[in-house]
Amino acid sequence: MLGSETEINDILKGLNQSLLRNLNYKFQLYGYEKAIKKNIEKYKRLINVSEIIHCDSYITMSDKPSDILRSKKNSSMSLAIKSVTENTSDAVLSFGNTGALMSLSLLNIKTLKGIKRPAIASIWPNVKGESVVLDLGANTKLDSRYLIDNSILGASLASILFKIDNPSIGLLNVGKEENKGKEEIKLASDQLNELSRNLSMNFHGYVEGNDISLGRTNVVVTDGFTGNISLKTAEGTAKLFQSHLDDAFKSSILSKMGYFLSSLAMRSVKDRLDPRVHNCGILMGLNSLAVKCHGHSEYRGVSYAADIIFSLLDNNVNKKVSDYVSEMHNKLMN
Amino acid sequence: MLGSETEINDILKGLNQSLLRNLNYKFQLYGYEKAIKKNIEKYKRLINVSEIIHCDSYITMSDKPSDILRSKKNSSMSLAIKSVTENTSDAVLSFGNTGALMSLSLLNIKTLKGIKRPAIASIWPNVKGESVVLDLGANTKLDSRYLIDNSILGASLASILFKIDNPSIGLLNVGKEENKGKEEIKLASDQLNELSRNLSMNFHGYVEGNDISLGRTNVVVTDGFTGNISLKTAEGTAKLFQSHLDDAFKSSILSKMGYFLSSLAMRSVKDRLDPRVHNCGILMGLNSLAVKCHGHSEYRGVSYAADIIFSLLDNNVNKKVSDYVSEMHNKLMN
Repeated sequence: MLGSETEINDILKGLNQSLLRNLNYKFQLYGYEKAIKKNIEKYKRLINVSEIIHCDSYITMSDKPSDILRSKKNSSMSLAIKSVTENTSDAVLSFGNTGALMSLSLLNIKTLKGIKRPAIASIWPNVKGESVVLDLGANTKLDSRYLIDNSILGASLASILFKIDNPSIGLLNVGKEENKGKEEIKLASDQLNELSRNLSMNFHGYVEGNDISLGRTNVVVTDGFTGNISLKTAEGTAKLFQSHLDDAFKSSILSKMGYFLSSLAMRSVKDRLDPRVHNCGILMGLNSLAVKCHGHSEYRGVSYAADIIFSLLDNNVNKKVSDYVSEMHNKLMN
Repeated sequence: MLGSETEINDILKGLNQSLLRNLNYKFQLYGYEKAIKKNIEKYKRLINVSEIIHCDSYITMSDKPSDILRSKKNSSMSLAIKSVTENTSDAVLSFGNTGALMSLSLLNIKTLKGIKRPAIASIWPNVKGESVVLDLGANTKLDSRYLIDNSILGASLASILFKIDNPSIGLLNVGKEENKGKEEIKLASDQLNELSRNLSMNFHGYVEGNDISLGRTNVVVTDGFTGNISLKTAEGTAKLFQSHLDDAFKSSILSKMGYFLSSLAMRSVKDRLDPRVHNCGILMGLNSLAVKCHGHSEYRGVSYAADIIFSLLDNNVNKKVSDYVSEMHNKLMN
């Protein structure tokens, strides 16, 4: 789904690149037909598997959810989501307004039975590999019920993505001791401990902010307010590090030579930790897969997001998550 | 104030190093006399200006505030705080239990008139220099009154530390738009806007997590829960970057040579962003200065913390903050 014209080229380039690794997929591209046609010409693989659906209207970053539901029924985002509910496509990838995507998905794709609200999950690099962190901004209210749902959704996503049976779950808090933190978090922790005793859930306990990057658990669960600020803090820190590093390498002739010699290895670090690459948010808890990328995504970020979608679809993500959620909720009620 | 024996050497080495730059200060060292005497011998500058006060008891990391107030009246931390209230010292530097330091400071040093609870402020490196971020864990409850007090305290600290007249203040939120975030944050924003119109306060508006490292404002204000997680996320991200970088430089002979050539510049980046160096928390809103360092502080972190304390004392921090707070509160009431 392509809302604005400006970043279309990066989006098309990213999708085209992902097709190198994912041969059997097709695209429906929602947006301004002219702009898409102008840019898609140089991406031969993509042209061959794409259908362009022209949309006159699109949702802007400043549109409010209430306006969208009323007056933007034929926007690119609305039509793309409709295609999923009508089974003409399997997943939605959006580069637009997150709040609008949430509202439209909630209304049309709807949540899985037992799940009140979707959560946004992201895949974070850590020293051991990667972990799933959620919620990153869907629900900014701190609520123990959301935290438990997020744990269930996060665990099911991690088990599919990382191909592990029983992913460990950490609840983000300001300390590891049982008496730390807010009431809602303590309540969620008690209930998750109960679930771990009775069900096949692997609740590790509290984790702190630094544990995310240390890879202490496969899943880190938090509310959308804390998660959003934590994610953006990490992005900012990565940029700060990058900026100091660039300055350092320019600081003398010796260090310039040093950079030249180690540039290949340096580039691999940049790519692995670049927030522009790891920027996609997976809307969890819906009946179908919806993924959100930054509006200003670089092609590598787009390609990474498409790879994740294909990997999840290959692994039958909708059915697996739905089965896992209903299993957990059934056991919870017994 | 030295609680446990294990890190004493790093603490003494750090204090000794800070004396190179701060010639006119004296120390009272609270802790096990034997352990201090054994380690202090090699630090000649420090020996000459230190008085060792032997303490039999110390507060552990697992002691609860309620127990401390009852049964640890002669602990190293209690006695060090007492020395400030009795004016035999000007500031407290602690490497111990943060909760205990908060409780004992609140009870003995007491808060400035108009300030309900102290906040923990930290100095964060950013792409433009440094900023003050608070609260980092003193008050985990989200309360608009705390956010406004934190803004006043943060601005007064930034004006002293960075020698600027009217530091800009950002309120940490999940978006820059006015309708974003929780009720308490919106309420605080409204009141800060009001203060900016009527008083000499420089409220910038909402900032997001990445704006901290980008140095968007001189002061970033948040609640203690979010601030603590944000700080630790940044620490974790810095460690992750460092760990990938170390691996990258070891990955080939070329990159090893590259590292050798650029090692001086690289070390400067590490030092500037090392969370072990920038780990001190300044307790703001008390009648006297109290500073908290990690229990496992490296000597460079200790030396950095001591430098900050001396700089604040040289600038008459207690009087300046107290004047600023009472000026703001007086105007608030009119």
